[in-house]
Amino acid sequence: MKTNPHFYPVILAGGRGTRFWPLSRKRRAKQLLALDGKHTMIQQTVARLAPMAAPSRFWIITNDDLRPAILRQLPKLHPKRIIAEPAGRNTAPAIGLAAFLLLRHDPEAVLGLFPSDHVIADPAQYRATLAKGIEIASAGENIVVLGIRPSRPETGYGYIEAGAHDHDGSLRVRRFTEKPDLGVARQFLDAGNYFWNSGMFLWRADTLANALREHLPNTAPLLEKIAAAYGTRKFAETFRKLYPKCENISIDYAVLEPRSAKGEAQSRIFCLPSDFGWNDLGSWTALHEHHVAKAKRGGGSLVPTSGRFTLNAQNNYVHVLDKFVALLGVSNLVIVETEDALLITTLDQSQDVGKVVKHLDEKKLHKLV
Amino acid sequence: MKTNPHFYPVILAGGRGTRFWPLSRKRRAKQLLALDGKHTMIQQTVARLAPMAAPSRFWIITNDDLRPAILRQLPKLHPKRIIAEPAGRNTAPAIGLAAFLLLRHDPEAVLGLFPSDHVIADPAQYRATLAKGIEIASAGENIVVLGIRPSRPETGYGYIEAGAHDHDGSLRVRRFTEKPDLGVARQFLDAGNYFWNSGMFLWRADTLANALREHLPNTAPLLEKIAAAYGTRKFAETFRKLYPKCENISIDYAVLEPRSAKGEAQSRIFCLPSDFGWNDLGSWTALHEHHVAKAKRGGGSLVPTSGRFTLNAQNNYVHVLDKFVALLGVSNLVIVETEDALLITTLDQSQDVGKVVKHLDEKKLHKLV
Repeated sequence: MKTNPHFYPVILAGGRGTRFWPLSRKRRAKQLLALDGKHTMIQQTVARLAPMAAPSRFWIITNDDLRPAILRQLPKLHPKRIIAEPAGRNTAPAIGLAAFLLLRHDPEAVLGLFPSDHVIADPAQYRATLAKGIEIASAGENIVVLGIRPSRPETGYGYIEAGAHDHDGSLRVRRFTEKPDLGVARQFLDAGNYFWNSGMFLWRADTLANALREHLPNTAPLLEKIAAAYGTRKFAETFRKLYPKCENISIDYAVLEPRSAKGEAQSRIFCLPSDFGWNDLGSWTALHEHHVAKAKRGGGSLVPTSGRFTLNAQNNYVHVLDKFVALLGVSNLVIVETEDALLITTLDQSQDVGKVVKHLDEKKLHKLV
Repeated sequence: MKTNPHFYPVILAGGRGTRFWPLSRKRRAKQLLALDGKHTMIQQTVARLAPMAAPSRFWIITNDDLRPAILRQLPKLHPKRIIAEPAGRNTAPAIGLAAFLLLRHDPEAVLGLFPSDHVIADPAQYRATLAKGIEIASAGENIVVLGIRPSRPETGYGYIEAGAHDHDGSLRVRRFTEKPDLGVARQFLDAGNYFWNSGMFLWRADTLANALREHLPNTAPLLEKIAAAYGTRKFAETFRKLYPKCENISIDYAVLEPRSAKGEAQSRIFCLPSDFGWNDLGSWTALHEHHVAKAKRGGGSLVPTSGRFTLNAQNNYVHVLDKFVALLGVSNLVIVETEDALLITTLDQSQDVGKVVKHLDEKKLHKLV
C-alpha cells in the first residue's frame, strides 16, 4: 500500500486492564495477553500497523511494570522508543510527550495514537481508513478521530456527535459526550450521527504541540524539556523529575472537548466513520461475545483444548488451562483460573472484576495483582 | 464403657463415592477423604467404634483399588483383616463372607455392619445405641437395624416401617421399602413409624450365616469355602476364583426383605430408633449443608484458609486449595477444584456429579476417575 513517510504510530500501553483479572496482572496487563488468537493484543496492534510504518517508527508509551514484557514481545521495535512513564498521568501528557519527541525528529511528523488492547476484525479496511485519516491530518491543523459506527446502545463508551460532511467522507465533529445512560444511548443510536470514540486519533505533531501549549500551558513546557533531554544522559533523571509534575488529564478533557466547544466550523476536528470490526474487549463478557460471534462465523474455536463435560449448561465463558472442566446446571458464567486464583462471576457482572483487584490492592496482596 | 468381647465391627469400604468427584477417585473414594474435619471418613468410623472393640477385632471389606490407602490410613488395624474383594458383588456376599470368617474364629461373634463414609454428630449416643443393639442381637436369632428418625421427606433413602414396640425401646420391623417419591415420603414423615435405613446392622455371625444359607443357597457354600481357605496359602486363589461366582445382590434384597415378608412377629428383625446426628453426606450439597449447620452451632469454620473475595454471592460451597477465590454475583454454586479437574454445579444439581464420572469412564479418561 502507499505509505506516508511521516506517519508514526504511537501506542499507548500503560493501562492496567484490571477487568481481566486474574489473567491480567500489574506486570501482565491486558495488552500483553493473547486474548484472541496466538498473539498478544499489543503484538496484534503492531502487526496490523506494520504495513504502514517500519518498526523503527513505532513509539510505545508504557510504564516500568510492563516495559520488560513489551520488549520481549516486540523484539523488532527500537527499545529506546519504548518509553516507561515514571508515573501515570493519563493520556494528555503521554500523547504530548510523543508529539514533542517526534517534532524534534521530524517536523512533518503525523502521529497516529492507538490503544494497545483492541481487536480489529478487518485490518485491511482499518489501514484504508487510517490512510485516509493521515491524508486529512497531514493537510494542516486538523485533528482526526476515528469514530466507530455504533451497533447497540452502549453505555460504556464516550460518543462523538458529528455535524456537516467534509472532504473525503469525514464529518465535522460537533461535540464529544460523556458516557450516556441507556435512554440517551438509544437516542444516539437512533439519531445516526453519533459515533463511539475509539481513542484512535491522527494529527500532526506540530498541531498537537500547539494544542497542548494552548490548553495545558503549565504541562507543555515540562514535556518540551523532557523531549529535549531525550537521547542524552540526563534523560532518565529529567523524565523522572518533571513528568510527575504534568497535569493528570486525558487528551479528551484537555484538548478535544475545549477545542470542540469552539464550534464545528472552527475546531477543525474531523470524525472518520469507521467500520472495520472494532471491539475494545472491555470485559470477560465482551471477550466471550467476541469469541461466540467469531465461532458463528466459523472463524475459530470457542473452547481451549482441555477436556470438558457439560450437562444443562449453556453460554459459559471458561478460561481454564490443563484441567478437565465439568459444568452441570450452570449457565452464563465467567470462569477464569490461573495458578494462584479462581474467578467465578456472571456475564452480567463481569465488569465488576476490577473490584476484586481494588480489594487485593487494599489488602496488600501484591502477589495476586 | 461396658464392652462385649464378642462384638466385631465389620466396615464396608468398597464404595466408589462418585458423587464427590473430582475429589473422590477410584483409588481415593469418599471414605478415604477428610470431608469433615482432619480425619478421613473411614478413620472417623473406626475411631468412634474404638471404645467398643480393640483394633484387632475390626474387619474391613474393600477392593484392590482402595486397600493400599486404607492400610496407610489405619495402621493399627490387622492388615489381614482388611480384605480386598476380587470383584464387587454388592453387600450380601461381603457381609456373608465376614460372617463365615468370624464364625470360624468365634462362634459367639456378633457382627456390627457399618458403612465407612457416614457422619455421626454424637458418638457417645451412637455407642450407647449400639450397646443396646448388641444386647438384642446377642440374645438369639435377632437382626437389629439402626433406623434413623427422619427429619425431612427424603426421597433418596430406603425406609423401614416399624410395628409393635419390643424390649429395650426397639420396634418390630414390619417392612423395608424402596426409595419413595416425595408424596409418599411426606406420608412416611407424618406417620411417625417410618425410619431411614441407615445401613447399620447388628446380628450374630451364626444367625447371618443361617440366613444366607436359607436365602442365598448357591452363594453361601462359596463363601464358606473362601472362609475355610482364610489363613492358608490357597486363600488368594480361592477368593479370586469363587467370589465372582457369588450372587451380586444387596443384603436388603437378599435377606432383609424376604425375611420381613414373614411378618413382624416371625421375622425377628428389630429397628432401633436412633438419634445421634447421622448424616450420610450423599452429595456435595449434603456436605455443604452439614458444614453450614455445624458453623451455625459454632462447631467449626465454613471456609478453608485460602483467601476469598465475594460480592453479591451467597451460599456457595467452595473447595479450592491454595488459591485465591473471587465470587461475584453467583449463589448456590458448588465449586470444587483439584490439580487436574474443576467442577462447577449448583446445590440443586450436585447429585448428578456421578454422570461426569460415567462420561469419563466411557471416554476412558482413566487418570480423571
